[in-house]
Amino acid sequence: MMRKLGEIADFVGGELTGDPSVVIQRVVHPALARNASDLALVLSGNAVSFLKSGQVQNVVMPPDIEGGRAVNRITVDRPRLVLAKLMQLFERPPFVEPGIHHSAVIDRTAILGAEVAIGPYCWIGPRSSIGNGCRLIAHVSVGADSIVGSSTLLHPGVRIGDRCEIGCRVIIQPNAVIGGDGFAFVTPEPGSVESVRLTGEVRSFNREIVRINSIGHVVIEDDVEIGAGTCVDRGTLGETRIGQGSKLDNLIQVGHNVTIGKNCLIVAQVGLGGSSKIGDRAVVGGQAGLPDHLTIGDDAVVHAQAGITNHVPQRAVIIGSPAQPKRDFLEREIYLKRLPAHSKAIKELKRQIAELQAKVEQMPPDP
Amino acid sequence: MMRKLGEIADFVGGELTGDPSVVIQRVVHPALARNASDLALVLSGNAVSFLKSGQVQNVVMPPDIEGGRAVNRITVDRPRLVLAKLMQLFERPPFVEPGIHHSAVIDRTAILGAEVAIGPYCWIGPRSSIGNGCRLIAHVSVGADSIVGSSTLLHPGVRIGDRCEIGCRVIIQPNAVIGGDGFAFVTPEPGSVESVRLTGEVRSFNREIVRINSIGHVVIEDDVEIGAGTCVDRGTLGETRIGQGSKLDNLIQVGHNVTIGKNCLIVAQVGLGGSSKIGDRAVVGGQAGLPDHLTIGDDAVVHAQAGITNHVPQRAVIIGSPAQPKRDFLEREIYLKRLPAHSKAIKELKRQIAELQAKVEQMPPDP
Amino acid sequence: MMRKLGEIADFVGGELTGDPSVVIQRVVHPALARNASDLALVLSGNAVSFLKSGQVQNVVMPPDIEGGRAVNRITVDRPRLVLAKLMQLFERPPFVEPGIHHSAVIDRTAILGAEVAIGPYCWIGPRSSIGNGCRLIAHVSVGADSIVGSSTLLHPGVRIGDRCEIGCRVIIQPNAVIGGDGFAFVTPEPGSVESVRLTGEVRSFNREIVRINSIGHVVIEDDVEIGAGTCVDRGTLGETRIGQGSKLDNLIQVGHNVTIGKNCLIVAQVGLGGSSKIGDRAVVGGQAGLPDHLTIGDDAVVHAQAGITNHVPQRAVIIGSPAQPKRDFLEREIYLKRLPAHSKAIKELKRQIAELQAKVEQMPPDP
Repeated sequence: MMRKLGEIADFVGGELTGDPSVVIQRVVHPALARNASDLALVLSGNAVSFLKSGQVQNVVMPPDIEGGRAVNRITVDRPRLVLAKLMQLFERPPFVEPGIHHSAVIDRTAILGAEVAIGPYCWIGPRSSIGNGCRLIAHVSVGADSIVGSSTLLHPGVRIGDRCEIGCRVIIQPNAVIGGDGFAFVTPEPGSVESVRLTGEVRSFNREIVRINSIGHVVIEDDVEIGAGTCVDRGTLGETRIGQGSKLDNLIQVGHNVTIGKNCLIVAQVGLGGSSKIGDRAVVGGQAGLPDHLTIGDDAVVHAQAGITNHVPQRAVIIGSPAQPKRDFLEREIYLKRLPAHSKAIKELKRQIAELQAKVEQMPPDP
Repeated sequence: MMRKLGEIADFVGGELTGDPSVVIQRVVHPALARNASDLALVLSGNAVSFLKSGQVQNVVMPPDIEGGRAVNRITVDRPRLVLAKLMQLFERPPFVEPGIHHSAVIDRTAILGAEVAIGPYCWIGPRSSIGNGCRLIAHVSVGADSIVGSSTLLHPGVRIGDRCEIGCRVIIQPNAVIGGDGFAFVTPEPGSVESVRLTGEVRSFNREIVRINSIGHVVIEDDVEIGAGTCVDRGTLGETRIGQGSKLDNLIQVGHNVTIGKNCLIVAQVGLGGSSKIGDRAVVGGQAGLPDHLTIGDDAVVHAQAGITNHVPQRAVIIGSPAQPKRDFLEREIYLKRLPAHSKAIKELKRQIAELQAKVEQMPPDP
Repeated sequence: MMRKLGEIADFVGGELTGDPSVVIQRVVHPALARNASDLALVLSGNAVSFLKSGQVQNVVMPPDIEGGRAVNRITVDRPRLVLAKLMQLFERPPFVEPGIHHSAVIDRTAILGAEVAIGPYCWIGPRSSIGNGCRLIAHVSVGADSIVGSSTLLHPGVRIGDRCEIGCRVIIQPNAVIGGDGFAFVTPEPGSVESVRLTGEVRSFNREIVRINSIGHVVIEDDVEIGAGTCVDRGTLGETRIGQGSKLDNLIQVGHNVTIGKNCLIVAQVGLGGSSKIGDRAVVGGQAGLPDHLTIGDDAVVHAQAGITNHVPQRAVIIGSPAQPKRDFLEREIYLKRLPAHSKAIKELKRQIAELQAKVEQMPPDP
């Protein structure tokens, strides 16, 4: 992949100072720039020191940072957005064997779109359809009666169960599971958790556990990304739905009947309990947990490891376990830091009062 | 799937008011009822509003809720149990190709029971046996010398290692791993963690890490369910065991030598450290963690995200990280909420004492 | 596997009291010793009670414990290290079909070393190389242009993406994913998280989310172990690196551009955010979380479930969420336990002051 510096500046919308004809072969971190065909991208002031060495000849950076000894410079306003554009220009898409691999098993009732690539050991079940331009790299399974939209990319080991709907331009990373059964059980008599909810104590026992079969499905809308190892359970009766443009990181648990809105960002290892609901554009930090039936509002920001225990209003900023509004959390931290001072103050107050009491005892009585 | 309303009422043990001959094709959430062959299931009062529209013609619901404009009603005592029964009646089992798929690789010394279904790309290693009526959907691997009981269902991508024993009627969701090696290592000299335990500080270093091979195995008893992506490590010397009827959700870590009792419910993303032990009928909430060698007693209820640091007695209700009895946790929350008042009170007390001191200073000395 | 007791004592460096010619067939926990060919390993005083029954005839144990009724005893200093040695002697390596299985798909440009075992349904992409003596058990995928060093063991369902480098003697457990794309996105305008960072509130919105393609790769150095279901994302521009000898447990998230040093121990379900960095010999407890761009120093010990919010210095011992030095955490716990006493003391002080005020009011004024 080779691009001229002028062409790059145009593509990213930056201002070039220097020679537009320089040929760039790699985009690198400033620490790794080695020769005249490397283009270093400076995302923050932390990387500035590398610009002094003279190793960095071509650089993309924001206007408020000194270019050091760089010869050619593209000045940009939002370097992280420029990173995204550069990664389009220099993309290295995953290797996919074109066409249908001889080892793939495709049910004779399945429907394949134009220009699909179905790699080694992929299995497509009966009546499922794979849209135009889809790429299934290898070892992918798609059950019966499922639909995969066009231009979707399924990495090795992805599992898609029966009756699921996957949108267009969806990317699913390796070993993710779409459409496992929900974790839904019931005890014939009220069980221990119900007892705790009512009485605060365990007074009844889970002597028998009855399975609730999941007959629902999963809908993943267009432009969604699902991370490696992430599991999205099917609905019990209805659907589990992930809204258009939302991005899920690795090893996330999405319970049955969950609804995630559009353009959400869900970081790795988050757990979303059954029937929980997330609005549009919400951001949920890594390892946070949302219990069954609770909701996160539009544009809310949930910090990493938060343990949600109540509905989260839209635009709320939430932190801690149990989770609180960030303002309350920070206030509590301030008071917690005062605890040693409190302890000391109380001791001193006791001493002063004892002293006063002694003095007052010695006073003459009101005559 | 079609059932008459009278037949459904009998099967779920409910009382029918209305026409028993109505033919039902779908069970749905009240919000999704559309026509005369839909049966709406009302689990709680939240769904009542949908009964007023007239869209819901047939309904299953508890006695304490108004039926709105529904025409035919089945009244039941425990609607969630009825949901389980309805999902038996209207079950949609996963698609499985009958028989042995031509692409399956089955060692010539493996033993297959009657009426097994072994789907595309399944691999069964030497001397392993698959019980009567088992279904291996696709891409399943079973190593050497393992036993799978009858009527067990293994979803795509399930990995079963060597020498494991899987019971009857077990369900394992996609990409779960049974029988990975335990995470067991030792430093020749006492390492950093031992140093912290003894001195509170890091005074020794993990210069060399020696592997402890796992030569044990995993036993999964009858009627267990294992969620998608869940990993159950093999014992070091002996076994890791999951007791009869226990249900594990997705993405759970079960360390080596763990013992889980019967009829437990373990929610997604829980971590169970090596040699930890869980009694019968315990419930462990999502993302909770149990360190090595600790125990959870029978019927204990552990809240989501709890970080256990001590043995949990039977029937205990545990919450927080570090985990405490729920009563203590709630009490601490009350005191934490009083912190601002404490701070203010201490300030006010200081002021009052200073005032008193000034007054007392002005008093005449004892004559 | 049969070994004479004398031979075992020599191999583990222990002192034998008893008959060196006894033939041992199994190493067991003392509770499971049944006959004269069983060797019981006592790791701690907890197991002593089993030595009284007479079932344990041969025992390995530390010098400070009574041997009970055992006939033959090997006395050792560090029994856990001896466990490692015994598990080498009695190892039961995973079953692997020798040679290249007929069902494997190996690109004609791939290079296979001597004595490799490539099991059923493995796929090796173009220009990738598999080193001498490697074992790929089954269902493994290796993308294009990757390198796997010699004597590496890849369990079933392991996914290795394009351009990754895996060292020698590496062990990767089932369904682990190496080289998934990083979770890297950007909003064209500053998004909600940036707004929270600057103002504490959500004042801007993630209306559009732009993908940042990952064009980097993963380097896993020699002697590393990766647990089942663990996901290691590729670098955005450069590499994600796991240092020589480090051991990762199951279901861990390793974000893009992460660097892990040498000989680290990372316990199950830990989450390491993008561009985070861990030094050498660090130990990170289960379910702990390290956000983007933070670092953990050499030899640091991070407790389970810790939620790191700042750089962790070398040799630090860290606990809690938000994480603190262990000393501070324990001190805070002490003060938190005093809260009820504080509350009571403040009430009592108020009472005493009111009493004093009343008394002082009654005093005669200074004449």
